[in-house]
Amino acid sequence: MALSAITEPDRPFTRRSFTPRFLEGRAFLAARFIDAGLAVRIDEAGNLIGRREGSDPDAGTIMLGSHSDTVPSGGRFDGIAGVIAALEIARALRDSGTQLRHTLEVVDFLAEEPSDFGLSCVGSRGMVGQLGPGHLGMVGPAGEKLAEALQRVGGDPKLVGAMTRRDVRAFFELHIEQGPVLEARNIDLGIVSGIVGITRLEIVFEGGADHAGTAPMDLRRDALVAAANVVTAIRRHAEHLANEKSGYFVATVGCLDVIPNAANVVPQRVRLVVDARSSHRPMTERFVAAIDQASCESAKAARVERAVFERLSDTMPVDCAPGLQALLVAGAQAFGFSTMPLASGAGHDAAFVAQIAPVAMVFVPCRGGKSHAPEEWAERNAIAAGATTIMEAVRCFDAGTQRVPRQETEKE
Amino acid sequence: MALSAITEPDRPFTRRSFTPRFLEGRAFLAARFIDAGLAVRIDEAGNLIGRREGSDPDAGTIMLGSHSDTVPSGGRFDGIAGVIAALEIARALRDSGTQLRHTLEVVDFLAEEPSDFGLSCVGSRGMVGQLGPGHLGMVGPAGEKLAEALQRVGGDPKLVGAMTRRDVRAFFELHIEQGPVLEARNIDLGIVSGIVGITRLEIVFEGGADHAGTAPMDLRRDALVAAANVVTAIRRHAEHLANEKSGYFVATVGCLDVIPNAANVVPQRVRLVVDARSSHRPMTERFVAAIDQASCESAKAARVERAVFERLSDTMPVDCAPGLQALLVAGAQAFGFSTMPLASGAGHDAAFVAQIAPVAMVFVPCRGGKSHAPEEWAERNAIAAGATTIMEAVRCFDAGTQRVPRQETEKE
Repeated sequence: MALSAITEPDRPFTRRSFTPRFLEGRAFLAARFIDAGLAVRIDEAGNLIGRREGSDPDAGTIMLGSHSDTVPSGGRFDGIAGVIAALEIARALRDSGTQLRHTLEVVDFLAEEPSDFGLSCVGSRGMVGQLGPGHLGMVGPAGEKLAEALQRVGGDPKLVGAMTRRDVRAFFELHIEQGPVLEARNIDLGIVSGIVGITRLEIVFEGGADHAGTAPMDLRRDALVAAANVVTAIRRHAEHLANEKSGYFVATVGCLDVIPNAANVVPQRVRLVVDARSSHRPMTERFVAAIDQASCESAKAARVERAVFERLSDTMPVDCAPGLQALLVAGAQAFGFSTMPLASGAGHDAAFVAQIAPVAMVFVPCRGGKSHAPEEWAERNAIAAGATTIMEAVRCFDAGTQRVPRQETEKE
Repeated sequence: MALSAITEPDRPFTRRSFTPRFLEGRAFLAARFIDAGLAVRIDEAGNLIGRREGSDPDAGTIMLGSHSDTVPSGGRFDGIAGVIAALEIARALRDSGTQLRHTLEVVDFLAEEPSDFGLSCVGSRGMVGQLGPGHLGMVGPAGEKLAEALQRVGGDPKLVGAMTRRDVRAFFELHIEQGPVLEARNIDLGIVSGIVGITRLEIVFEGGADHAGTAPMDLRRDALVAAANVVTAIRRHAEHLANEKSGYFVATVGCLDVIPNAANVVPQRVRLVVDARSSHRPMTERFVAAIDQASCESAKAARVERAVFERLSDTMPVDCAPGLQALLVAGAQAFGFSTMPLASGAGHDAAFVAQIAPVAMVFVPCRGGKSHAPEEWAERNAIAAGATTIMEAVRCFDAGTQRVPRQETEKE
């Protein structure tokens, strides 16, 4: 709550990466990191890191964290809850006098949300060597380059390209679910099985802009009729794939533009963007093939042209490490928290960190599934349950304990 | 072509009602009316009228005409062709020394296209006593009221409300088809059977703006899914009604807006406007009832609310006079022109004039069915065929000749 109070005053809750408010928030966090006995630094990728050395210099690092930046008019929990939970775990370990073999790092990743430079997950990309010259040259407000902004917040644009962390043995991230499932099923925690790959398709139908009064039905080339058929087909295929249960699948037409969009003109051109997300790549490929065919058939039936069918972007799904998931389930059971496996339909820093280390995530329920909005809310006890579970998993991981969760408490 | 050259130079062909260009065009027309031996006046409703007295003062008036204003970036024929054809008929009657019993009037109706005051068919509404204080108070560019603009172009806003022409015995209007049928079927002329009534429906679906990644398919309330189903249903019902052949029917969703229209957000709200046109009122009523039901069912299936289902506007269809249609068909036959009956899917001044007199219209083919655009085109010979046909119908009407067209040349 203290961190969320650091917001643009006229539009809570806004703490955009690279802004003065963001740096104010980081100063707040750095002070708390130091209070918790952590050594504070900012790495080449601009991530704020609090570090406690382990007893075994060869054991490597257990990393915990999330991000403190927000979308415009966002909430008080998305990202922030994960940073604060990681901080609280560090405090609890110190307060209980627990010395880990592994070094522990608490990380506030830089710019997880799409930044004003047009790039998201700046810090976690950088940490895994994925922040290249193309990214660093992107231009933001007032013509500033991302490289300049990175330097301004304490990163090192010259060294970030060669950065690779080889010491991380496990990464845990707590995050609000951003969806309705845990609340709807009254489950304490979601143990994330994987983070979806996201495929964006652009489809454009080109017909003829006829007079809505004088063009007979059988001579029309109505681009919206073709688009409507495709929206229906996308919904049908997405429901079918989601019901297969071989993985998580959702698809959405969120964006649809009609040209000229006048009541008395038959639509000439319709552009739509499809967002398809899956934890299982073959589902995405089957979906794209089905929509390729459906859009061709819809164009033919409406006697219009399918002028564009293109992948605007395409990322692969990431699996969370089964061993870390098992530790989280067992940790939750030890404290009596109910869990269920859950795919993450949104992207997270953990998806990049997965390139250098095993990762796992805990989702806590959020009210009405709402996020990226001022009314975003998670209960204090829910976040505490998630943090407790991660701490228990960290202790077991550090001790090298293999835990097999009891089967009866696993659901779905 | 000379009249169409009077255009806003930077966006041909534009001669918006009430503008200096429009008045320049009217001065050109008035001079040509006088050259043709017509007495020129502007009536209370701002219509430019050229008049030749008939030999029988009790016979009443045969009225011919259309409009000289255009939409922005319109064409050279929509409206204009009908005024010039009427002028040419007056010239041909004079040149052939024909003295009609009826008085002949050639009319350029004021502001047929939607004007900058938000009203169409200003002159024809006024001529039939349908221009009331509500219309005259409408405000246009620079805060001018329609009443002031009407006075400025020579009309009389004080007297127009009480205006009713009781002397008109027949009205003929030539117009380009604005559709593709005559060209596609290679028919010389369309004899208009009626002018459609136009019903505009607004439908709004209200769902939930969920995250496109985290909201599972079975928990979504996607407003666009409901809207897409309705677009498909509208197309299906419109095709069905059009195929019934009990009248002309078309329906279009030309306008569809998605909120928030972002690729990663499930559509919360979709508004669409349906434009339904029919020559036969019961078809419209059946259509509206079917779409009422289909939109309720679509909302239910997508678990969204049908927040709005409203008639934005609603006009009745107008029948052209069977006797005048028969005269036109016979007139065309006399000169060897092929004809077919055709409903007008667009509104025309004739639809208002029908409140005071029998009306008929002749459609001439236009290239590609295009209108309201600079590429709008009708062949000189096609317009001449229409004018000749109307002149023949005028002569027969004036002579009181009953003509029964030969059945074999009537084509559907």
